[in-house]
Amino acid sequence: MSVAPFDHPFLAALLSEPQAAALFSAGLELAAMLSFEQALARAQEDEGLLPPGAGAAIATALEAFRPDGAALALATRRDGLPSVELVRQLRLQAGKGLGDHVHLGATRQDVIDTGLVLRLVQLVVQLEAALGKVLAHLARLGQRDGAVRLMGRTRMQRALPITATDKLVAWARPLLRQRERLGALKPDLLVVQFGGAAGTLDQLGARGPAVRARLAARLGLGDPGDAWHTGRDGLATFAGWLATTSGLLGKIGADICIMTQNEVGEMTLTEDGGSSAMPHKANPVAAEILVTLARFTATLASGMSHALVHENERSGAAWTLEWMLLPQIAVATAAALARADELLAGATFTASKTG
Amino acid sequence: MSVAPFDHPFLAALLSEPQAAALFSAGLELAAMLSFEQALARAQEDEGLLPPGAGAAIATALEAFRPDGAALALATRRDGLPSVELVRQLRLQAGKGLGDHVHLGATRQDVIDTGLVLRLVQLVVQLEAALGKVLAHLARLGQRDGAVRLMGRTRMQRALPITATDKLVAWARPLLRQRERLGALKPDLLVVQFGGAAGTLDQLGARGPAVRARLAARLGLGDPGDAWHTGRDGLATFAGWLATTSGLLGKIGADICIMTQNEVGEMTLTEDGGSSAMPHKANPVAAEILVTLARFTATLASGMSHALVHENERSGAAWTLEWMLLPQIAVATAAALARADELLAGATFTASKTG
Amino acid sequence: MSVAPFDHPFLAALLSEPQAAALFSAGLELAAMLSFEQALARAQEDEGLLPPGAGAAIATALEAFRPDGAALALATRRDGLPSVELVRQLRLQAGKGLGDHVHLGATRQDVIDTGLVLRLVQLVVQLEAALGKVLAHLARLGQRDGAVRLMGRTRMQRALPITATDKLVAWARPLLRQRERLGALKPDLLVVQFGGAAGTLDQLGARGPAVRARLAARLGLGDPGDAWHTGRDGLATFAGWLATTSGLLGKIGADICIMTQNEVGEMTLTEDGGSSAMPHKANPVAAEILVTLARFTATLASGMSHALVHENERSGAAWTLEWMLLPQIAVATAAALARADELLAGATFTASKTG
Amino acid sequence: MSVAPFDHPFLAALLSEPQAAALFSAGLELAAMLSFEQALARAQEDEGLLPPGAGAAIATALEAFRPDGAALALATRRDGLPSVELVRQLRLQAGKGLGDHVHLGATRQDVIDTGLVLRLVQLVVQLEAALGKVLAHLARLGQRDGAVRLMGRTRMQRALPITATDKLVAWARPLLRQRERLGALKPDLLVVQFGGAAGTLDQLGARGPAVRARLAARLGLGDPGDAWHTGRDGLATFAGWLATTSGLLGKIGADICIMTQNEVGEMTLTEDGGSSAMPHKANPVAAEILVTLARFTATLASGMSHALVHENERSGAAWTLEWMLLPQIAVATAAALARADELLAGATFTASKTG
Repeated sequence: MSVAPFDHPFLAALLSEPQAAALFSAGLELAAMLSFEQALARAQEDEGLLPPGAGAAIATALEAFRPDGAALALATRRDGLPSVELVRQLRLQAGKGLGDHVHLGATRQDVIDTGLVLRLVQLVVQLEAALGKVLAHLARLGQRDGAVRLMGRTRMQRALPITATDKLVAWARPLLRQRERLGALKPDLLVVQFGGAAGTLDQLGARGPAVRARLAARLGLGDPGDAWHTGRDGLATFAGWLATTSGLLGKIGADICIMTQNEVGEMTLTEDGGSSAMPHKANPVAAEILVTLARFTATLASGMSHALVHENERSGAAWTLEWMLLPQIAVATAAALARADELLAGATFTASKTG
Repeated sequence: MSVAPFDHPFLAALLSEPQAAALFSAGLELAAMLSFEQALARAQEDEGLLPPGAGAAIATALEAFRPDGAALALATRRDGLPSVELVRQLRLQAGKGLGDHVHLGATRQDVIDTGLVLRLVQLVVQLEAALGKVLAHLARLGQRDGAVRLMGRTRMQRALPITATDKLVAWARPLLRQRERLGALKPDLLVVQFGGAAGTLDQLGARGPAVRARLAARLGLGDPGDAWHTGRDGLATFAGWLATTSGLLGKIGADICIMTQNEVGEMTLTEDGGSSAMPHKANPVAAEILVTLARFTATLASGMSHALVHENERSGAAWTLEWMLLPQIAVATAAALARADELLAGATFTASKTG
Repeated sequence: MSVAPFDHPFLAALLSEPQAAALFSAGLELAAMLSFEQALARAQEDEGLLPPGAGAAIATALEAFRPDGAALALATRRDGLPSVELVRQLRLQAGKGLGDHVHLGATRQDVIDTGLVLRLVQLVVQLEAALGKVLAHLARLGQRDGAVRLMGRTRMQRALPITATDKLVAWARPLLRQRERLGALKPDLLVVQFGGAAGTLDQLGARGPAVRARLAARLGLGDPGDAWHTGRDGLATFAGWLATTSGLLGKIGADICIMTQNEVGEMTLTEDGGSSAMPHKANPVAAEILVTLARFTATLASGMSHALVHENERSGAAWTLEWMLLPQIAVATAAALARADELLAGATFTASKTG
Repeated sequence: MSVAPFDHPFLAALLSEPQAAALFSAGLELAAMLSFEQALARAQEDEGLLPPGAGAAIATALEAFRPDGAALALATRRDGLPSVELVRQLRLQAGKGLGDHVHLGATRQDVIDTGLVLRLVQLVVQLEAALGKVLAHLARLGQRDGAVRLMGRTRMQRALPITATDKLVAWARPLLRQRERLGALKPDLLVVQFGGAAGTLDQLGARGPAVRARLAARLGLGDPGDAWHTGRDGLATFAGWLATTSGLLGKIGADICIMTQNEVGEMTLTEDGGSSAMPHKANPVAAEILVTLARFTATLASGMSHALVHENERSGAAWTLEWMLLPQIAVATAAALARADELLAGATFTASKTG
């Protein structure tokens, strides 16, 4: 079944991006949560909260873990989240003596949020690479076609002649700024979540902060110095970055839809994105899809702002809304970068007939 | 993989509804498109556009159709939709002599849009039944608990005593109006799409309207008297209905979250929604999820309004946006009705301690 | 000052519509609230709740009312709404003996909601007239230019020749359906709000429903048979209608932007919408603005769905959100109808050079 | 008239903030555009593009400028923007000999965009100050009430005891991060717009970049090194920042609505935000309004993402959408900061009765 297009047997080829989509599979989600529990046990051993060897033993025991999916589904309906049951299964897996040490002092939100962040680390790497490819295409097109004379158009009417370079610079500059912004938002985004039941690590006493620091280091994440159970600004800011990136690619798509109109003819596209000597004209499908994805992310990102209104020490209502939106915004943006890559790979500027 | 929650191994139990989700599976989507082509061939035979027996023969030949999924995916990426390739495969399946008669005078949008509407027919039946169950719970609760004294609250502060009946009527009235509205929007929504390449049925000459009427009748759909390739008001209005229904259920959820606060205690919930003699208090998970789903549909429905800006005789950009949004809005609303059903099944009003 | 464009010294000419905007002025808002209180006093006299003559005397006394605006502003900040202070001022105005009878059994939400509905009655009349003008233009253009050959375009590429009639029908049909829908939603929308403090008219005892019926009749509104303090589906459905109408006009605007491109040239526009013998080409400003207004209403209507999550017997948070959104959605839609009227008045289809 | 609440005679006291609203008045808008033209003339004299003294003479001549408002309104409807007519009036004001030098090499978008940015400079100062006041309240409350025992609540149910400090830290941390983010986004946001008709400063030849640098310096803005006519990422990112800030304040509002429930009683509010010896309980109006404003900005910010799809070298459709949204998002956020300031000024934590 495929209510959404991202895992759909044939729509995914158009509207999804497999690497990013894979990060939001249930399998990688569980694997990331497992990593959290393994690293936590080790961090607690390091900090002397577990007997020597217990952390490593837990980590090893959990390697072989295979979730009971049916039980997870049932429990998710009952508890509103999978991690109560997951921790139960993990404790069983760790076995007598070790099981009690699993998930010590943590809360179910810690494992889910950190499990998300661990995958965002990889997502950001993918996004940076994809953005780099798009920027490389723009640079390459500038070198090859930069001098091509186009018609500058304002309010959908011819204004003044410009060059392909002018167009390419107007496309590239905002994406370069987005690359900078992505770098700048990482320190707030790629951080561990570790707060315990009420966000205060109360069960770990004075050693809470040290455990958090060790846990973060083991997972390759930043230590935010606090829990962010209810402070979802990092995620909302990232969702905004995704929607902005997707929107800027939508601008490129809209421009290409106009330039490839039969009557305008300032760009030709090859279907395969290749160097075919005799490219034949094609519907600007990928260009249209860039517009679609821009409007999709613009729409969904709004919900991430609503999810900031997160009442009390944990809001099931607001938190769950993030789960429904953020993965889709992320994968749609990754898909937009992939479509832009393919589109620009096969794009050739051609001189305006009227300029 | 499960970027969205609707087909997710464990989140679906919380955030989806299997019957509605099934309608948007690729399998039922292809089956509905097949039904369109079968009914079209028969309608064209009825109207004398195909040789006697050809329509029935096509319909029979297509029964055994099994799609080549990999080819569909590739083609969807290339063409922006699956139906060019699907029709190619169907023509092959029909075989020499019959193949040329498949999809006669139709366009690829006709088969996809009608394929959607065929599933909306079933969705509407499901929604009406689910709405009926929720309304029945409200009536039953009124009979059992109606006299229970609650505290009326305005601006989050105690105002005046009310009864459970007052609360239940305030919940039920808007849903009763929504039931009426759903009935009223069906004639515009549950109609065949049949317009040919430019919406004018130009290939069928004078017999176009008669074929459309027969096609509609065979599919159990209304005949809108025209194509609606670019007139997406019916779908947008339906999306609005879904978001409004989900929003009203969100109000019930928000109320129950407040009534089940430990300090307020004007409602108790049983986990299993059952008749347990000793119900134990539970987190109001389903009530919170009603709020989540209300905000989710409120967010996504906005995109359906944006998709109304559908340029020219077919906009790939705007049309594809509908595919990304409408199924999710529909399934989220079905999920909200299911959660409301379960929640109300286990709800008991208890007298306000302070009233 | 003019944070929003609707009352802005120069932007209003582009983005607003004065008749609709006037309905949402503070002056007409106060006048409508006054009408409510006058009609209520008379209805209560009719029903024997006030001494003979008292209702008429109140109505007369309130004619001369001039609000103390500064006090209203202060009180609105304190109370979250203007009507506590307004009723205080009105009671003072009615004077000793009569003052106590003003606003009897009503709540502050009753006067504000009914005051809104009284203006929606006029808004609906305006919208119907404006929609009629747009439809008349489409019909007129069909008679004059209907046979003009245009190029049908799908996915931004030339597809098949069509005629101006095909385009005009595709524009008109959805608007005709919207006219029907507007008619259908009036009974639920144009109804009195009268429920008292907790929505139960508890202060009026058995005579509550009769007073509500008389009040509705005096104001020319429907009697919904209940209060709808928390059941905001009527307003949300209306907001959806507005956004859909605006979205459909946005489609017309997007089409005209494409048809008036220099290279396409399938439509010419005169600046003054007139019959100038030598129309000169103009930027398609009004066509672009139709797209702007469509996206504006699509965006804001989402918030009206969020406002359905209206907790308890009155939610300051959700109700106030409606105040911030609905007037803007309404005026933007009226502006879209006005811009469409002007645009179509000066539009001429011209044969495709390439068809 | 007051379709929107920001300039409304009595709603503004609740939903607006006068300093920020003033920045978006037509008067300050015109003043900022005038500053642009004055600085441009001087920059061009500095660069030797105008005769010695001409820049200063223009700047002086324009000091006395009084716009013809009616002509501006008419022209805005015709041209889609006020600046064509404004420049005409300014040239007239400058008089013979000087008039031709006004607006040299600039385009109408340059003056409007830079005019906006000049006011954003002041807005950012206001926002930083307001954010500082809110953070100071949180610090002060921590010092005074930090040890007060509250009940931590998850999923709307009692979880574990926490302290007021825990709550305050959870409120303050995200706002501190927002303060950092605001600092970081200034360099991209507070920059001059200067590109000429097609964004290439073609009329100024080789001296274009030098003029832009001088212009930026004279206006106290950054020099972005290019025009950003179509690259609206800076504005979209800022709109996202505003919505995130407003959303975080909405979280505080939602928490206070719950803490001030009669049955919960973990916070008391004084109406005047003062030190009254006998504070009386009040409706948490400002707390509710924080939720309202959060949902308002979450809703409108979505449209700023849609406006990124800015076709060609200038899109009337997309650009105008920004005008309708950004001022409202900005003023609503300023209002949220003001309401939060007032609310926290009068807030007192009180120990949980049940902790």
